[in-house]
Amino acid sequence: MSTLDSAFSALSDPTRRAILARLALGEATVLELAKPFQMTQPAISRHLKVLESAGLIVRRADGTRRPSRLAKPGLDAVDLWLNMLREALTRNYDRLDQVLADIKPENGGTIR
Amino acid sequence: MSTLDSAFSALSDPTRRAILARLALGEATVLELAKPFQMTQPAISRHLKVLESAGLIVRRADGTRRPSRLAKPGLDAVDLWLNMLREALTRNYDRLDQVLADIKPENGGTIR
Repeated sequence: MSTLDSAFSALSDPTRRAILARLALGEATVLELAKPFQMTQPAISRHLKVLESAGLIVRRADGTRRPSRLAKPGLDAVDLWLNMLREALTRNYDRLDQVLADIKPENGGTIR
Repeated sequence: MSTLDSAFSALSDPTRRAILARLALGEATVLELAKPFQMTQPAISRHLKVLESAGLIVRRADGTRRPSRLAKPGLDAVDLWLNMLREALTRNYDRLDQVLADIKPENGGTIR
């Protein structure tokens, strides 16, 4: 499975998106994530494993703690792909603007 | 399944992402999509159905043709959610810049 496949697949789960939203505020341990989500630590760990192998988070060792944080490269890859679609949509809208601009009053409002 | 769930799930398939990339160039029919992808029309139709129910494309009736095109609202919803993560990452980087800026030569290079 490519990075984009696994990244988008990881993002399709609401709990995993909520975990990412929490990590957007700063790094957190499994214990710190388990509390607000009212989930068991193994359940949180499973979600973190999916997010980690999708390249969306990284975990670092801090003694016995393994805090997670957002992984910029993984998010950038998702962003880059979506940007291609965004730009295409903008170009299409610009073309529509041009068509509308070409409808001049002297033509009686008809498209040239 | 929420719109974001189904949108990210739809985006996790490489063929569906390729179809969206093709539609970024302009609307296309099943027949027009089947050719470059070397897929059968029923296979393309199944992918289009997933993209349509995920709100990523819309299809219009044009006689017997039903061309598909990108759906801006669906893509905007995905974008809005990712933007929240992007902004958080930028804030974190800004904080890092501040920490680095606080390391002044007069402090002998140590963090205050």
